[in-house]
Amino acid sequence: MLKEYTGPIDLKYMSYQELTELGQEVRDYILEVTAKNGGHVGPGLGVVELTIALLRAFNPPSDVIVWDIGHQAYPWKILTDRKEIFPTLRQYGGISGFLRREESLYDAFGAGHSSTSISAALGFRKAMDLLGQEGYVVAVIGDGAMTAGMAYEALNNAGHLRPNRFIVILNDNEMSISPNVGAISTYLSKILSGRFVQETRQKVKHLLEHISGAGRIVKLTEEFLKGLISPGIIFEELGFNYIGPVNGHDLPALEKTLENVKLIEGPVLLHIYTKKGKGYKPAENDPVTWHGVAPYKRESGEFIKKPSPPTWTSVFGRAVVELAEVFPELVVITPAMREGSGLVEFSQKYPNRFFDVGIAEQHACTFAGGLAAQGLKPIASYYSTFLQRAYDQVIHDIALQNLHVVFAIDRAGLVGDDGPTHHGVFDLSYLRCIPNMVVSAPKDEQELRDLLYTALEWNGPFAVRYPRGPAYGVPTEGFKKIPVGSWEVLLEGEDVVILAVGYTVYQALKSAELLRKEGIKAGVVNARFVKPMDDVLLTHLCERYPLFVTVEDNTVVGGFGSGVLEWLSQKGILKKTLLIGIPDKFIEHGNQNLLRSLVGIDAEGIAKRVREFVKKSELHML
Amino acid sequence: MLKEYTGPIDLKYMSYQELTELGQEVRDYILEVTAKNGGHVGPGLGVVELTIALLRAFNPPSDVIVWDIGHQAYPWKILTDRKEIFPTLRQYGGISGFLRREESLYDAFGAGHSSTSISAALGFRKAMDLLGQEGYVVAVIGDGAMTAGMAYEALNNAGHLRPNRFIVILNDNEMSISPNVGAISTYLSKILSGRFVQETRQKVKHLLEHISGAGRIVKLTEEFLKGLISPGIIFEELGFNYIGPVNGHDLPALEKTLENVKLIEGPVLLHIYTKKGKGYKPAENDPVTWHGVAPYKRESGEFIKKPSPPTWTSVFGRAVVELAEVFPELVVITPAMREGSGLVEFSQKYPNRFFDVGIAEQHACTFAGGLAAQGLKPIASYYSTFLQRAYDQVIHDIALQNLHVVFAIDRAGLVGDDGPTHHGVFDLSYLRCIPNMVVSAPKDEQELRDLLYTALEWNGPFAVRYPRGPAYGVPTEGFKKIPVGSWEVLLEGEDVVILAVGYTVYQALKSAELLRKEGIKAGVVNARFVKPMDDVLLTHLCERYPLFVTVEDNTVVGGFGSGVLEWLSQKGILKKTLLIGIPDKFIEHGNQNLLRSLVGIDAEGIAKRVREFVKKSELHML
Repeated sequence: MLKEYTGPIDLKYMSYQELTELGQEVRDYILEVTAKNGGHVGPGLGVVELTIALLRAFNPPSDVIVWDIGHQAYPWKILTDRKEIFPTLRQYGGISGFLRREESLYDAFGAGHSSTSISAALGFRKAMDLLGQEGYVVAVIGDGAMTAGMAYEALNNAGHLRPNRFIVILNDNEMSISPNVGAISTYLSKILSGRFVQETRQKVKHLLEHISGAGRIVKLTEEFLKGLISPGIIFEELGFNYIGPVNGHDLPALEKTLENVKLIEGPVLLHIYTKKGKGYKPAENDPVTWHGVAPYKRESGEFIKKPSPPTWTSVFGRAVVELAEVFPELVVITPAMREGSGLVEFSQKYPNRFFDVGIAEQHACTFAGGLAAQGLKPIASYYSTFLQRAYDQVIHDIALQNLHVVFAIDRAGLVGDDGPTHHGVFDLSYLRCIPNMVVSAPKDEQELRDLLYTALEWNGPFAVRYPRGPAYGVPTEGFKKIPVGSWEVLLEGEDVVILAVGYTVYQALKSAELLRKEGIKAGVVNARFVKPMDDVLLTHLCERYPLFVTVEDNTVVGGFGSGVLEWLSQKGILKKTLLIGIPDKFIEHGNQNLLRSLVGIDAEGIAKRVREFVKKSELHML
Repeated sequence: MLKEYTGPIDLKYMSYQELTELGQEVRDYILEVTAKNGGHVGPGLGVVELTIALLRAFNPPSDVIVWDIGHQAYPWKILTDRKEIFPTLRQYGGISGFLRREESLYDAFGAGHSSTSISAALGFRKAMDLLGQEGYVVAVIGDGAMTAGMAYEALNNAGHLRPNRFIVILNDNEMSISPNVGAISTYLSKILSGRFVQETRQKVKHLLEHISGAGRIVKLTEEFLKGLISPGIIFEELGFNYIGPVNGHDLPALEKTLENVKLIEGPVLLHIYTKKGKGYKPAENDPVTWHGVAPYKRESGEFIKKPSPPTWTSVFGRAVVELAEVFPELVVITPAMREGSGLVEFSQKYPNRFFDVGIAEQHACTFAGGLAAQGLKPIASYYSTFLQRAYDQVIHDIALQNLHVVFAIDRAGLVGDDGPTHHGVFDLSYLRCIPNMVVSAPKDEQELRDLLYTALEWNGPFAVRYPRGPAYGVPTEGFKKIPVGSWEVLLEGEDVVILAVGYTVYQALKSAELLRKEGIKAGVVNARFVKPMDDVLLTHLCERYPLFVTVEDNTVVGGFGSGVLEWLSQKGILKKTLLIGIPDKFIEHGNQNLLRSLVGIDAEGIAKRVREFVKKSELHML
């Protein structure tokens, strides 16, 4: 079926039996490609029927379908216009693992972060209204994404504007990445289980018995209760028409509902329930693991693991467990990233000191502020790219009050396959400009541990950022306090000194080896503190070296290198300085080390740039 | 009464009559001081009884009271421990117009931005639980602040954790600064007016009539309806015990309710209603104007206006009205800042093209993205400090997709009396590091108009930032397209060139005049584009001038000056460069021009720094 499939129009002429077969083939295709490339498996498998139903009931791109996050868009990509190139998924130069406007007209709005779809869809709706364009606008959002304030802001605005032909599909699989937390999630499960209506009935029964004892009224009451209380009363009160819950794998029912929903005036919230990983047993049985995975054996669901050193994430996870014994005031907060941030062990060992607040980056930060204000030592654990969501809270609630919150920032730098929505390449710039902030990055595992320890011994906001993926496998032991602001000379040189941050330190060391073979003697310094910087050492380096090079896996705009330039300018020192880092553009997806090499922050890239820099400067001096 | 008042303990021994008198005196005192100093009038007057009730029912600081935003905390300041120094309100060196931890033990958590109180309070609650501390935690939040996603994230988390001794007081005055918008606000008004219960009754009556026609059942139904449907069902479903609505000016009732609420297990949402500006007729009659005001005559409520040129805000407001005629696709979005951003005229003239989305900065941005994706030209209007709330959305939803959204950023630089929570001194740094962004600042009114026009003719994200307060009164006419990235030489010089941005351009010109009298010939350049920069002109300036000075009303960390240093480093040019801007610390509140002078970005300050810089460099050259 899929082989002959030419595009969405085909779907309209298929029977349900054919559609079912097609759906199975789409699932097979997803498994085939993700087994090889890795990727998000569970989300896509869960929405095959929904995708088909949407493409039958609506006519994109004139009807606008906005998917949230986009990691569930594999069936969408296959069934719209990317069937042939789907095997290039997440490969460098291939198609993205998320939605992308540049990739297809069918991708109305790109996304990699959660909870943006209702806002964007409302923008489309109002634009179409003003432009006199008919057509429907549909936002698809998961129940996990509903914990984010942004989704609520959008619902609140939409419920106020009450646009027509505006449908929000709440795809409820009782999961985000981890099982959901939060009251709204409890509420939604109550709806799904029928408990909402049931509980209300119980309540009425009880009340009636106390008023009269009349038997038949009870029966009667049940009759009108359905009409009286919508299970989606929260959404009704926010101005939406609530429809549901509907089984999202029952294609005919889903389609019929969509057709009915199109006729309703005002905004509609259609509540469907689906199963993450539907159709693939390993994913159905363990949806947390199978949310997004590395390559695997399809038959067994076994992961094809290459032996590798422990990840930065797991080193962090181990460290917090140990640090919890040292610091009884230590507590950990995560916005729905327990697994991704390596916090499973901590959460099991210290359930009272662990707070998964759901996808709620803003709240997570200020909540940490409250904990700190009352004397605890909170570690707020974020992915670099998601910390952007809490930027105002970092400034206004933490730094301005100089509260002792430790920001443990995972996935800093280039993250690889997830691409531009997930690269953490701005944090040094956006954190460095905040007064009171300490901004640091470890060169290796032991230093990650030591910086965390140092941060907990500090008093004030303190950021420690570290990359995605495997670290170096250096042996780790204990914790050491590092003087805040102190750098570390790793290699003495003569011609040029390379000041490197975090991931790039070992690369700089390797580059220095390469350069030494060519007769260029480069010194290497581990600039583990981006803020404050090491005044004394910098002064010394100025005297010793004619040339400076800075290296970081952050944008070169406003990052560590700029900090060094600012320092030089402040001291009135003229020093030729080369800034190496991420160039000022969005970097595509692709293998993490490939990307690092392409932007030139690996050993060879650094060596090349330093070589040119030294040569050019010598030329000038002649 | 107030004269002899020594602190909260006194309140516990007063009769209601005495408390009423005291309340009146507190109101008088607020009016007396704000008439002289200006400040937030309406919010404080509305919560006098609430403040008294809180101080009687609870024992801060061992009970923790967290106020939201803090602009309603004047009675709190007076009645806790700042009665004597209250006349220094908002004066440089005096007390802040918002809450501040440094100011008093009673200010549990500082705030100037909205909707943070529930998150912070929940942090206090969990910390106290872990530390085994009894005591209550109370968050006070306005109905306006409830439109922000952050408040919802916090409610969702609190409803899940279900802490005891945790009370959220929703202070409902049906206003934020402007009248509220959004579905939640409609819902809350329905509760206040009793319409929620009424409408449900109607519905039941109707249903019952169709089922049986039985008369007495209707009566019966009404009896149990109250028990069946809480008017605060949304909060109930989110895990809170909803109590209310209670008249927030009825002190005995309020107090009794608070005492009762203390006994309830699990988190409580207490819904009270108050009148903004209560007790002062001008403020009661026009709460929008009287939210925050300049000095005024107390008797008449007349404002003491000094003749001044039109504000930047009003120039912006006029410009968008005119631009709307030029660009039929132009639409404007504001997160609840219609008045503050000068958009009243636009909103009246083009109601269909104007979107006040409520206090919802994240949604506002992505909503603008959706509008742009469908072909409109949205201007997203923000205060600089509040744009921090939408940082991720600017990066992820706008810049990454290179969508044509114009960010009109008011209140950039030092804002004056509102102080550190409101200064807009980070935007150049946090915007400049985003790929695809154009970042600009006008030197005067005409250039503001021209930059807006240029931005609308552009295709991609474009930020125009301008200061708070009066502009220069230069005559304005029409619109001119400015080549993107082009700077403007305003004054030729010899010894040094001053590259100035936005507000500081005219100051730099004046400083050049001062310097010329001393024999220092400074050139002045209007660096209206912080990104991209004027390559050609910069190259020329490098040849012409031995010394560079950059000036900006943004932090010197990662700002415009750093951009110039990066450019020089990239070109391999060594040039002595002095960076003038906001130092790397939080700047207090105080008169706007006083603050500018204190940090040295006014004409005299610039002249002083340039003079020293030139002298020192000459010394080096000798």
